[in-house]
Formats: sequence, structure tokens, C-alpha cells
Amino acid sequence: MKKEIPYKIYLEESEMPKAWLNLRAFMDKKPAPLLDGETLKPITLEKLSNVFCEELARQELDDESKFIEIPEEVRNFYKMYRPAPLVRAYCLEKALDTPAKIYYKFEGNNTSGSHKLNSAIAQAYYAKKQGLKGVTTETGAGQWGTALSMACSYFGLDCKVFMVKCSYEQKPFRREVMRTYGADVTPSPSMTTEVGKKINEEFPGTTGSLGCAISEAVEAATSRDGYRYVLGSVLNQVLLHQSVIGLETKTALDKYGVKADIIIGCAGGGSNLGGLIAPFMVEKMQGVRDYQIIAVEPSSCPTLTRGVYAYDYCDTGKVCPLAKMYTLGSGYIPAASHAGGLRYHGMTTTLSELKDQGLMEARSVLQTEVFKTAQTFARVEGILPAPESAHAIKVAVDEALKCKETGEEKTIVFGLTGTGYFDMMSYQKFNDGVMKDYVPTDEEIEKAIAKLPKF
Amino acid sequence: MKKEIPYKIYLEESEMPKAWLNLRAFMDKKPAPLLDGETLKPITLEKLSNVFCEELARQELDDESKFIEIPEEVRNFYKMYRPAPLVRAYCLEKALDTPAKIYYKFEGNNTSGSHKLNSAIAQAYYAKKQGLKGVTTETGAGQWGTALSMACSYFGLDCKVFMVKCSYEQKPFRREVMRTYGADVTPSPSMTTEVGKKINEEFPGTTGSLGCAISEAVEAATSRDGYRYVLGSVLNQVLLHQSVIGLETKTALDKYGVKADIIIGCAGGGSNLGGLIAPFMVEKMQGVRDYQIIAVEPSSCPTLTRGVYAYDYCDTGKVCPLAKMYTLGSGYIPAASHAGGLRYHGMTTTLSELKDQGLMEARSVLQTEVFKTAQTFARVEGILPAPESAHAIKVAVDEALKCKETGEEKTIVFGLTGTGYFDMMSYQKFNDGVMKDYVPTDEEIEKAIAKLPKF
Repeated sequence: MKKEIPYKIYLEESEMPKAWLNLRAFMDKKPAPLLDGETLKPITLEKLSNVFCEELARQELDDESKFIEIPEEVRNFYKMYRPAPLVRAYCLEKALDTPAKIYYKFEGNNTSGSHKLNSAIAQAYYAKKQGLKGVTTETGAGQWGTALSMACSYFGLDCKVFMVKCSYEQKPFRREVMRTYGADVTPSPSMTTEVGKKINEEFPGTTGSLGCAISEAVEAATSRDGYRYVLGSVLNQVLLHQSVIGLETKTALDKYGVKADIIIGCAGGGSNLGGLIAPFMVEKMQGVRDYQIIAVEPSSCPTLTRGVYAYDYCDTGKVCPLAKMYTLGSGYIPAASHAGGLRYHGMTTTLSELKDQGLMEARSVLQTEVFKTAQTFARVEGILPAPESAHAIKVAVDEALKCKETGEEKTIVFGLTGTGYFDMMSYQKFNDGVMKDYVPTDEEIEKAIAKLPKF
Repeated sequence: MKKEIPYKIYLEESEMPKAWLNLRAFMDKKPAPLLDGETLKPITLEKLSNVFCEELARQELDDESKFIEIPEEVRNFYKMYRPAPLVRAYCLEKALDTPAKIYYKFEGNNTSGSHKLNSAIAQAYYAKKQGLKGVTTETGAGQWGTALSMACSYFGLDCKVFMVKCSYEQKPFRREVMRTYGADVTPSPSMTTEVGKKINEEFPGTTGSLGCAISEAVEAATSRDGYRYVLGSVLNQVLLHQSVIGLETKTALDKYGVKADIIIGCAGGGSNLGGLIAPFMVEKMQGVRDYQIIAVEPSSCPTLTRGVYAYDYCDTGKVCPLAKMYTLGSGYIPAASHAGGLRYHGMTTTLSELKDQGLMEARSVLQTEVFKTAQTFARVEGILPAPESAHAIKVAVDEALKCKETGEEKTIVFGLTGTGYFDMMSYQKFNDGVMKDYVPTDEEIEKAIAKLPKF
């Protein structure tokens, strides 16, 4: 007899993963290597270690180790806010009147408000272990900066966050959370770095950009002793750490004998989606089970659905290595949509390669549709989702409604990456009926892609 | 052999309480009855039912039923965000280097951000069952209004919230959460009620008060068909519903064979504390175990520590019944401290009577000390607490440090009622070093108490 499924499945501490899953190691055809921007050859561990902590640089380049042990100190921190619940969306199913079974992995029940903490604590741990004084990073909307502040505070590391100036001014609450955790938050562009000074001189009164904040954070790390730069998405190491999401999800489903049919996640740089799908993708590649895997992106930044698969710079400032990925070009400036975490021009190499191999599909959705779904979800499931997360909900609902048409009882699993408590200005726009949609024209996309580096 | 205690104890769905515990029914000497403001006699069910839903009015007056069944619909809603975890504060213990064992019941993992949802959903359920169209209420800081909006949205009830005007303007995010859940949020004083119009005429440009918002909400309920007024604290019915906090806590402790020594909670109107201590107080009154029970209040509103035990009005507008309680007088205006939920001039009758009988003690704490503790807690336990909740943390830490002095291994349990995500302006004041403390002088207290009604 099948066990009755509770509203929320919480694993026991003893069931939590003890190793991260390195998805690339399971791929027959691996993602293309990162290239050194100066030599255009695969980047070396040595060079990467100037910017990143050594162990993280090693993880970044490792596509052989299938599993990498989670250090005990990190597992202890995980125990403070994990396991994250796998929720059976009984109320949503009822509201949609669908025969589909819907589950979501909820990563929002921690002070950073999202899954970002999973990698932040790992990166802080390795920085501490290396004997560093601190780390630097950039943050836009502020989720990553918050997560890193918490992680650094736990390990007693200095944390320097360059926050895009307009966010610094418009989102003072996120800034204050970081300060409460002892982080040093600087509006970017600042006068504390050479690159910041230069940009301020060139563009007086600028409110900054993520590209500029990255450049400042990298300079702040490489120009002083005992510091390294850390990043919350796109990188292989981040996907590795985020596999804890998928591993817990799979264990919880297995525990109740549930077989998923569709796995859905939102995709900005790919950190959450890459982590969520990891163990399912392994089974798919090994022919164990044929999951339908869907990446959801905003129509305003349609990297996977309308970009090209090519080598490109990971950052606007071109200080990071080049990656082969689906991209709209590192100069592409997406419209100011309300899902700040999904405004990245590229996509992590692993997901790009999986998409190229036809193992993963992608859809783009309009933000007004996303907020409409978010509102429904909040009302029936009691959780107010982050705009980013609501992209996944939108497609989960679409798929559940298809099941209603066909009568199929598919099992849908999606990632609910975070809460929207710090996004109420966006909800206000929606509540006031003044939110707009953005879909770039073909010309705009072509123009952006034409600027890709040529090799 | 004792089971190892995990970081977080989550009960199984089957272990969740099926009935609320009615603490008053276990008391030999009951709290004094509510008095009708017009007759000064104990208020009747009939009269109370004009303002409150019938079943809730019944619960309000019931000091006989020891347990009251939780309706299945309410239990199903509880399953969406409950059981709340009982957390073993391993990291805090380590940071304090104390032999004490510290546990906290965390009620913040839901979109309303606090324990208020436990009663909101029950009150909405009874309103729906009575066939009402909607309910009205007031909200200051916004936690109760948010919880009620969520509950009403779930049951398809209209929800009219009168929000103190200065909060409406200064806390737009809470307002937007309520609107996202479909609530009608009106800044108070408004021009939609007679009392509102009158106040606006008398005091042009006023930014409102909780007392005024209560009066408007009561008028809005009683002046239209199919509406009743609901309230988030102070009332007996609210304590009843909140007993789910204490019952889950007790079950979780029992499951692991843990015996608590000290139970601590913050106290504004008393809703959280009354719920948390319920099953422990029963054991204490029955001589099963002698728990030390501590109510914590802000030094700026020292109801239990410096007030008198007497009949007083529950609201500034004097529209509600009179209650015998610890009070500073319904005209007492506490300093604008950062724990808006603890700025009530009185205390629920049950807790007042328990204090008077010597079964519960009370302490008042300075808000700068509270925020200092909140910051430490956020850093070591990863949860950013609401300023209200942090009052309980402060005393828990004090007690744990006493254990360090004496070497005693006491088990301390406190209620972490909610998160501080919407309180970052207060944290900012603390981070900037400009937060002040308020302690009323003896003269101020005497002057306020002198205005109590005389019978």
C-alpha cells in the first residue's frame, strides 16, 4: 500500500545528502571548457585561483568527480535551515481542478529568502579553510548578497558587497539585512576602486549596473591580500552546491514511491535549475526514466529560447573567463523586468549543453502572466513567491491545465526558489494594474547577438 | 538511551493537535468576566454576538470546556504551514558557551511572518460557517492584517482592514501583501465611517492611532449586513487558538524525552505567550512539574511589571467590553518603540490572573538591548527575528548566561513568534546607532493609571 502523502515532506537529518552531485561528470559529451580571456585557451587552475578560492577553482574545473563530499561544517549549517520541505500542492491542484499531482521544493524558508544560501555557505567555508580574511561579491536585487552576508557572518569572514547603486537606494531593506549580518555594503559604482572611479568620471550620476559591480568586486578581491571573489550563479561550482536541492527532492519522492514526470525550474544564470534537475537528469541520461525537464525564463531575457549557443563573456566588464553558452551577448541589456534574478544574458554551460543535446527544453513567459499566477498561488498555497520563482509556477500551472484537458495524471515537480517579501514594489505595480510586458524584437536580438566575440 | 536531538524537530501530520486547549478551564480561580460597558454587568453571548461571530463569542465566554475540537478545514489549512519547527539552538548555545539547553518554537515560516495566522484562519472559518460576507479589523504594524487577509482569501471572505494611516504610508510593503491577498486596506482615520469623519474633522491631518482604527473597524462591521469584527490578540478566543503553539511544543519535547525548566515568551496583548505556555501551565497548576514561566515586555510599555490589576477598557475608543487585567490605562500612549506588537496598554485576562496568582513572572527589557540580542541571534541561528520576538530571545539569553555562572544545565524554551523582514527600518536605526530607549517615569505611569475607570 502506498503511504499517504503529507502536505509537506520533511526528510530526517540522517536522510540529508552527504555529498553534492556533479552533473557534468555524468555527461558523455561535456560542456565546453571555460576559456582564458587573454590566451583564449582553457583556463588553468592557477589562473582561476587568483580570483577564486583554490578549492572552489578546483571544483569549477572538475568534470570527473561524480560526487563531492559536503564538509561537515557545511552540513551542520545546512541543518539550521534544511531539509527544505517538498510540498504537495493539494490546494493548488484543487483550485485548478486538475488530475495532475503537483509538488514543489520550497527553498524560501531562510532569512536570505532563497536557495542562494546553499552555495554561499559552501563558498564561505572554503574561503575560511584557505585562511582568507574575506570575500567580495556583487549583488543586484540583493538575494545573493544577503545569503553571502549570512554565510560570512557564520564563519567570521569579512564580506564586501558591491550593490548596484539604484538597488542600494531603492531596496534599503535588503541592504539593512546585509548590514545586520555585518557585511560592508558599498553602492556601485563607488570611489573605492579604480574601475569605479573611472566609471563615475565617465558617467557622472550613473546608478550603476551589475556588470560594473562585478568589475569592482573582482578588483576589490584581487587588489588586496587575503581576499577572493565569489559568485552566486552561472558557475559550475554553484550548480554543484545547489545539487542539494535536487538530491533532497529525489530522496523525498523516493521515500513515498512517487515518480515524477515533469521537472520545472526558473532559469537566470541556472543555479537553481541546475541543482534541482541534477539527479533526475542523471537518470534520464542513463535511460532509467524519461523526465520532461523545462527551464523557464522571462520573455524579456530569452536566453535559451532566442539566444545562440556560442562562446561569450560571462560579464559586461569582460574580466571573467569566456564560456560556451546560450547567450544574447554580454552587452545585451534586458528590459527592467521585475525578476531581477533572471536578467542574465547567458546561461551556465552545463544547462546550455543539455539544452543543445535536446535533454532539456525551455519556455519564455510574460511577466504579467507570471504575477497573475503568483497571486493565485499565494492565495491558495499561502506562500508569496519571489517573481523569479513564479516563472516556474506559471509553467507548472500550464502543464497541470494540460493534464486537465487530457485527463492525464502526471506528476509535476517545480522549484519554488524563494519568497517575495522584498519584492512588494513589483507586486504593487501588478496590484495597481500598471505592470507592462517586454518582448524584444527579432531585430533587437539580432543586433545584440551580432556583437558576440568572433573566434 | 535518549534519542539524539536534531536541529529542528518537525512533528508528523498525525501528531498535530486535533483540539485547542482552553487554559481558563483548568484554572481553579478563573479570570474575572468581561463587563458590558453599558450595564457594567458580565457581557452576554447575545450582545457579544452583535460584534463577533457567534461561535467565536461562545468561545470567548467559555471557561468550562477544557478542549475544543479544531475543525477539519482549519486543520487542513494548518497543514500548509504547520507543524512549526521546534528548534534546538545548538549554535546559540555554543556562542554563549552555556551549559543550558535552548529550544525555540519558530512561528515565522509563513507569509504572514508570525503566529497570527493560527487564530486568523480559525476566525475566518467561523465567519464563513456563519454565512457571513466578510470581516473587518484594524492593524498597526500589519502582521495581524496580513494574516487575516490570507485567511479570508482562503475561505473567499471579504476582508476590510483599517490600517493606521502612518503605517499605511510608512509600511507600503505590508499593505501590498494584504492587497495581493485581495484585502481592502483603508488608511485610518478614513472618510468611510462616521467615527473616521469625526476624527478627521476634529484633528485635520492626523496620522491615526490603533484606538481610532479599532473604532472604525467595529463601526464598519456593525453598520452593514453580513459582517463581523475580528481581533488578533487580547481575547480569550485568540489564546485558545494559539494553544496550538504550546501543544506542538509539548508534543515535540515529550517525543524526545526533554523536560523544560523555563518557558519564555514576549507579551503584548498576550496571544502568543498564552498559547505557548498553555499545556505547561496546566501541568504547573496540577503539580506535575514546576515550570518557571516568564513574560517579557518592553520597558516602554511595562504593563505587567508596572501596571495595576484592575478593570479597564480594552480600547481607546471604549467600544469594546471592559476587562480585569494588568493595565497602564486605556489612555496610555507608549513611546513609539520598534516593537509595534507590544505597545498595548493592557494584557489578556488569563495571563493577568496567572500573574496575579504568582504562577507567572514578568520582566521588562530595553529595546537597544533587545536589538543587540536580535543581531547576535540572527548571526548565529540564521533567523532574523521580529523585534517583538527578540524580547523573548533577550531573556532566554539572560537565563542561559545565568546557567553559565551557576553551571546549571537548565532547559529553556522560548517562543520565536515571527520574522523581522518588514521591520528593517528599525534594524536600520539600530545599525546606524541612533536607536533610543524609553522608560516612562513613575509620575507618567501614576498619571496614566489615575485615569482608570472607577467602579
